[in-house]
Amino acid sequence: MTDFTSIDRYLQKNRQSQLDELFELLRIASISADSSKRPEMTEAANWVQAKLASGGLKTQLISGDGPSLVYAETEPVPGKPVVLVYGHYDVQPADPLNLWHSPPFEPVVKDGNIYARGSTDDKGQMMTHIQSVIAWQRCNQKLPLQVKFLIEGQEESGSEVLETKLPEIADQIASDVIVISDSSQYAQGQPAITYGLRGIAYYEIRVYGPKADLHSGSFGGAVTNPGLALARILTEMKTPDGRIQLPGFYDSVVDLEASEREMWQQLNFSDEAFAEQLGVDALTGETGYTTLERRWARPTLDVHGLLGGYQGEGGKTIIPSWTGAKISFRLVPNQHPKAVTEQLRSFLAQHAPPGVRIELIDLHGGRGVMADPKSPFMKGAMRAVEEGFGVKPVLIREGGSIPIVAQMVEATNADVLLLGWGLDDDGAHSPNEKFCLEDYYRGIRASTRLWHHLAQAG
Amino acid sequence: MTDFTSIDRYLQKNRQSQLDELFELLRIASISADSSKRPEMTEAANWVQAKLASGGLKTQLISGDGPSLVYAETEPVPGKPVVLVYGHYDVQPADPLNLWHSPPFEPVVKDGNIYARGSTDDKGQMMTHIQSVIAWQRCNQKLPLQVKFLIEGQEESGSEVLETKLPEIADQIASDVIVISDSSQYAQGQPAITYGLRGIAYYEIRVYGPKADLHSGSFGGAVTNPGLALARILTEMKTPDGRIQLPGFYDSVVDLEASEREMWQQLNFSDEAFAEQLGVDALTGETGYTTLERRWARPTLDVHGLLGGYQGEGGKTIIPSWTGAKISFRLVPNQHPKAVTEQLRSFLAQHAPPGVRIELIDLHGGRGVMADPKSPFMKGAMRAVEEGFGVKPVLIREGGSIPIVAQMVEATNADVLLLGWGLDDDGAHSPNEKFCLEDYYRGIRASTRLWHHLAQAG
Repeated sequence: MTDFTSIDRYLQKNRQSQLDELFELLRIASISADSSKRPEMTEAANWVQAKLASGGLKTQLISGDGPSLVYAETEPVPGKPVVLVYGHYDVQPADPLNLWHSPPFEPVVKDGNIYARGSTDDKGQMMTHIQSVIAWQRCNQKLPLQVKFLIEGQEESGSEVLETKLPEIADQIASDVIVISDSSQYAQGQPAITYGLRGIAYYEIRVYGPKADLHSGSFGGAVTNPGLALARILTEMKTPDGRIQLPGFYDSVVDLEASEREMWQQLNFSDEAFAEQLGVDALTGETGYTTLERRWARPTLDVHGLLGGYQGEGGKTIIPSWTGAKISFRLVPNQHPKAVTEQLRSFLAQHAPPGVRIELIDLHGGRGVMADPKSPFMKGAMRAVEEGFGVKPVLIREGGSIPIVAQMVEATNADVLLLGWGLDDDGAHSPNEKFCLEDYYRGIRASTRLWHHLAQAG
Repeated sequence: MTDFTSIDRYLQKNRQSQLDELFELLRIASISADSSKRPEMTEAANWVQAKLASGGLKTQLISGDGPSLVYAETEPVPGKPVVLVYGHYDVQPADPLNLWHSPPFEPVVKDGNIYARGSTDDKGQMMTHIQSVIAWQRCNQKLPLQVKFLIEGQEESGSEVLETKLPEIADQIASDVIVISDSSQYAQGQPAITYGLRGIAYYEIRVYGPKADLHSGSFGGAVTNPGLALARILTEMKTPDGRIQLPGFYDSVVDLEASEREMWQQLNFSDEAFAEQLGVDALTGETGYTTLERRWARPTLDVHGLLGGYQGEGGKTIIPSWTGAKISFRLVPNQHPKAVTEQLRSFLAQHAPPGVRIELIDLHGGRGVMADPKSPFMKGAMRAVEEGFGVKPVLIREGGSIPIVAQMVEATNADVLLLGWGLDDDGAHSPNEKFCLEDYYRGIRASTRLWHHLAQAG
């Protein structure tokens, strides 16, 4: 029988050392995108490995062409589920440095928040699970299931090593449920479990017209303007009421369940406050869905950038020889980016205006992720979060995409639990990144309960 | 009675000196856009003034905030029309220098062409009229009408001095017909008179969405994407069959006359050859008009450049906070750019999607120019060109715009004759600019006849 009294006493007693340890990790400038930071990447990997080893786990560095993966595991527990904790020890670049109120790699606590690059994304959140396993071990409690850790060093720059190694380590990381704390609560004081992520299919479309820029006076009216042709293609791709016009695009889309819609209705999301926060006078999108539904559970199309022609000051009178657009579709979990590429190709073939040639560049794609919000693991996780945070979590989805999660789910065939301890305004990729100090401790506490409830669920 | 025998003998005898004189002017690197070339600008203005003075003209430098205007006039001839020759002594920059086969300011004759920056645009063409007036004077022939010259030094960089001085010098340059040789023949061996230029109304449109770039995962589907909004606005502005949708846009458009359409039909313009030259697989544009009609005599809309969002390599997942486009309308002579601005404003007000704010930046505009192709001056000019070139000229229009011409026409209320001696492939703004040597002499000869026939016409 698990003795949470002793674990809670341990947690209470070790708050300072748990913070000191996080600060140690935060002081390492492990910016994966910066090739001059290779020594720091190694230092951070070694630090995480040593920390896990100090909790009695069997650890291993898996090296590849880039920062190593840190792998660790507790003892197997036959007949019980296996949990895989995924996290990352790398961080985003810290620039612009002049906007930081305190140096990004000199963590401080101020107004109840830990300020440092990586505090929320993901060192602080990831550390909650390491501290939790250590707490069990220090209190001489035997973990009721096996916990594996896979902590990578390239989440902020493409997860190349992990992606490459995935087939090789599939057996090693075999698990029943993947736990990831690298996202946000629904709001301050309202923890959440995210059970769905959207996928993405990202492209550049180029429209080529005349072989060289033409004088728009002498030639205007004679040839298809590549800027207007691109505009028409983009316009025809999505109706004013937000429906995407690629042939077959909605065939594999699973509609929202009534229970989900009802659940999110309870969140009392305010369109007005949201519009004001974003600085727009109206929210728009697919007819028939609320804003949260559109953001979390409906596919969409966005333009990210426009390219081509004269972009300097004043006017230059050319018909540009080409134009382009960066676009992406956000996909719901049942859609596959490869299928979207084919749909887009056939759309472009049907909609290409005469007098121009279209090029489609497939930049990257990833499937969405969907967990069953009614699964036993989910129920167990909800109890753990409630016990850790003192508030019943809400079940949400997230509009963003973490392609590596979809790949890990595919490789392991495991369920996934996205237990975000952060907040939307943490500034994960911005100056003055923060993580609420109490949420660090609440996350550790929730994690100590998680192993117990997942073992019961399995 | 004019003695063209003596004039023709003079021209024949002075071919070399006329070329040497042009070479002198071509050696002066009078690049108006290059502020380090101020001494060359002064040198060129002085050179042109001295050359005109050598022909017995009364000359004057009109100074302003920039390169001076050179003004000159012959004796008034009461009861006869006054001709104003407009030209420019400044040239385009010469870069990229490494693409020139011979230095841009060291003129050479090769394969029957004069190669130098400014050879066709406009020193060579402009000099034909100066040489012609000098020829009359040297042959002791009294000019049958008064010829005025206004040669500016900023045609390639905005005509600011001329534009500013125009009201002040309106009386001085008062005239019945303006002659400009700064354009092209219809084709090699086929001289032309251009009786119409299109106008222009040039804008930048900006579409503003959220107050900062948003993560397209978390927010995609909730807000109007400024890239898609811009695309829709541009698409709705012109139908697939080339009709511009601004309210009232066609109200002041004067349709082509049957006689013009018939005349241009005779030019045997080849759509296929033209498409191949431009590198497109189809020509497109307003339904119901031929390619020449669309280029010369119909208004159109073109996109010159697209702005906003992520334009670097690979993909960045943002909803850009703004996008933009540089666009212009080419106008036919009866349209006014100011009216188009109002039409565009009301179009944008009607077509702005919800959730974005539109900004319209009026960059510049100019009216078109139209001469009567059946006027007595036109008939006189046609005879002069035929006598100079040995071939009857065709009557064409040009799709481009020369805003200063429209302003001069407005200021003087004069007719205009666009007598282009150049060729389409002269490379006026490109490396290896050329001007056909024989067309220089033919232009001088045509000009000597021009005074005679215009005097008869008036």
